[in-house]
Amino acid sequence: MHTLELTKPDGRPMTLYARGPLPQDLRAPSPFPDPLTGGAHLRWHPLRGEWVTYAAHRQDRTFLPPPEYNPLAPTTDPANPTEVPAGPWDIAVFENRFPSLGGFVAEPPELIVPTASAEGRCEVVVFTQDRTASLGALPLDHIELLLQVWGDRTHRIGGEEVIQYVLPFENRGAEVGVTLHHPHGQIYAYPVVPPVPERQQRMMAEHYAKRGRGLLEDHIAAERRDGARMLYEGPHAVAFVPVCARYPYEVWIAPIVPVPGFAQLAPVVRADLAKALKTVLMKYDALWQRPFPYLMAWYQAPTDGKPHPESHLHAQIWPPYRTRDRLKYLAGTELAAGFFAMDALPEDKARELQQVEVKF
Amino acid sequence: MHTLELTKPDGRPMTLYARGPLPQDLRAPSPFPDPLTGGAHLRWHPLRGEWVTYAAHRQDRTFLPPPEYNPLAPTTDPANPTEVPAGPWDIAVFENRFPSLGGFVAEPPELIVPTASAEGRCEVVVFTQDRTASLGALPLDHIELLLQVWGDRTHRIGGEEVIQYVLPFENRGAEVGVTLHHPHGQIYAYPVVPPVPERQQRMMAEHYAKRGRGLLEDHIAAERRDGARMLYEGPHAVAFVPVCARYPYEVWIAPIVPVPGFAQLAPVVRADLAKALKTVLMKYDALWQRPFPYLMAWYQAPTDGKPHPESHLHAQIWPPYRTRDRLKYLAGTELAAGFFAMDALPEDKARELQQVEVKF
Repeated sequence: MHTLELTKPDGRPMTLYARGPLPQDLRAPSPFPDPLTGGAHLRWHPLRGEWVTYAAHRQDRTFLPPPEYNPLAPTTDPANPTEVPAGPWDIAVFENRFPSLGGFVAEPPELIVPTASAEGRCEVVVFTQDRTASLGALPLDHIELLLQVWGDRTHRIGGEEVIQYVLPFENRGAEVGVTLHHPHGQIYAYPVVPPVPERQQRMMAEHYAKRGRGLLEDHIAAERRDGARMLYEGPHAVAFVPVCARYPYEVWIAPIVPVPGFAQLAPVVRADLAKALKTVLMKYDALWQRPFPYLMAWYQAPTDGKPHPESHLHAQIWPPYRTRDRLKYLAGTELAAGFFAMDALPEDKARELQQVEVKF
Repeated sequence: MHTLELTKPDGRPMTLYARGPLPQDLRAPSPFPDPLTGGAHLRWHPLRGEWVTYAAHRQDRTFLPPPEYNPLAPTTDPANPTEVPAGPWDIAVFENRFPSLGGFVAEPPELIVPTASAEGRCEVVVFTQDRTASLGALPLDHIELLLQVWGDRTHRIGGEEVIQYVLPFENRGAEVGVTLHHPHGQIYAYPVVPPVPERQQRMMAEHYAKRGRGLLEDHIAAERRDGARMLYEGPHAVAFVPVCARYPYEVWIAPIVPVPGFAQLAPVVRADLAKALKTVLMKYDALWQRPFPYLMAWYQAPTDGKPHPESHLHAQIWPPYRTRDRLKYLAGTELAAGFFAMDALPEDKARELQQVEVKF
């Protein structure tokens, strides 16, 4: 993996990653000449016992590009800079111009609930220079590079004192609110372990304390023995529709042997994990012969300085469709109660995905 | 409040509620002649530590009505029955034909995770006979009747041994997935205290143990002292944009003095709570001069047989719009991390709603 560290004219850091060597004279462009000044802050939600971040400066985006402008395409005209330079890079990572966490960290206001500076980081990960590609369509070694990049980011950002959790994710498709269709994901790095990973870590830690084995490790073993919902079984990685899916086409992807995070992946495991990921994403797109929207989150061990032997790197992918033309809306019971109601059986949805053949 | 208990031809119970007397010869219709046979079951989600319900029979709806058919309008032609009879009722409550919980309770399958029968209830609450009305547009005494109905349902259903939590809610608008626009809500009654109310009860109980006062009670007092986000202040009830809003136009509505649930509301408090609710819903619809979509959930004390002095009946309303023409999508950070990111300040959104004058 080749890397190049750069700084944008507005002060934001950027790293370019490539499979081959990178020329050292590349410059990082920015559509924004001046440093960001407005900052976000956190407010405590007393009833839910969680933090909420307020980044009102995000509404002040004075930058209104024409619809054909793609800020994630390489800059071709220096008078109209995008977010990334031309050059032989494969993956680019830079700080979001309007971060919900981090960036310009302002003093928090005094309010009737506890407040805090919105420490943290929001990074954009450009998966490829090709705006017509998709993550699943990239060559295997490019996807492997991405897993390596996620490891590098987690290692670097997670090493910062304030960062307690690093979450790489991809929102894909207009159905989940994405307006910019150039293949990209994001990394959010939090100053706390956020509620969902916190809950999962707690469940995993309880199981580990009782059994001396990983909860997801045991679950994967059970899914493999059962077999009904498996989508990929390689020597080191698996993908399956979990028996407890909350979304009809939900899929989990994980190394078979627990690994705390991307930074600890052995190369053979990483290669197999890339294959599992590519298999699932290609099945999705082949199912209805059209781009399949989803939210994909990769859960890792917290970077809070405590030991987390219970952790097990894995992806949970949540597509918004129930059937070819029906969306699953999260409404009363899902959002207000946190109790998911499914109209479909995971076994049936797994069968649909199993029947889709993909080759690469 | 006048009530009439009926049973539909397919066995589902129904209750009619009215401000005036109800003729005793009304019959409950059903579009479905035969009893429901397929049942739902629960599966345990080990990583999240929560139950998920699977109601695959919901997909088998053989009943495909023409688009103009409204199952919540009073039956006029006995050959084409709807879900409710003609007659002088104001509010009708009946069991959902395709319930996610309850109904025909089947033996749960044996799987690699714990499973359980999907005990519980899913009720439909028809707010009015007028399909062109909306909850906020109903007369005050009709809204008061609804609060009374919610109390009656909570008392009856919550009294069942298996029911631990009763959640009345309304999903309103196509933006939150509603396809049937006749004004109606739902009541879900759960065999457990579901994750979101469970978390809130825990936060409230911790505060109560420490301070001997309610968490929401103290929060309401602080919101009133601050004043910046208040939308309604009556003698017994308030409505405000909470300082920790997770949705731009989020509003909470509550009695000022803690009351565990609808069934315990004194008539004067109920009347003022109805006024607070009507004020908020009218402001919403007046803001952009069009029906304002939202998810409204009413949180009450669990009906798990334990004392809950920490409880405080209240509504949380979550509209999906960020601005007049932009939806707030829940994506990576909200769903995968449980960490909400807001682009707007609650103070600014409160000001927008404060400036909308409503009269009734």
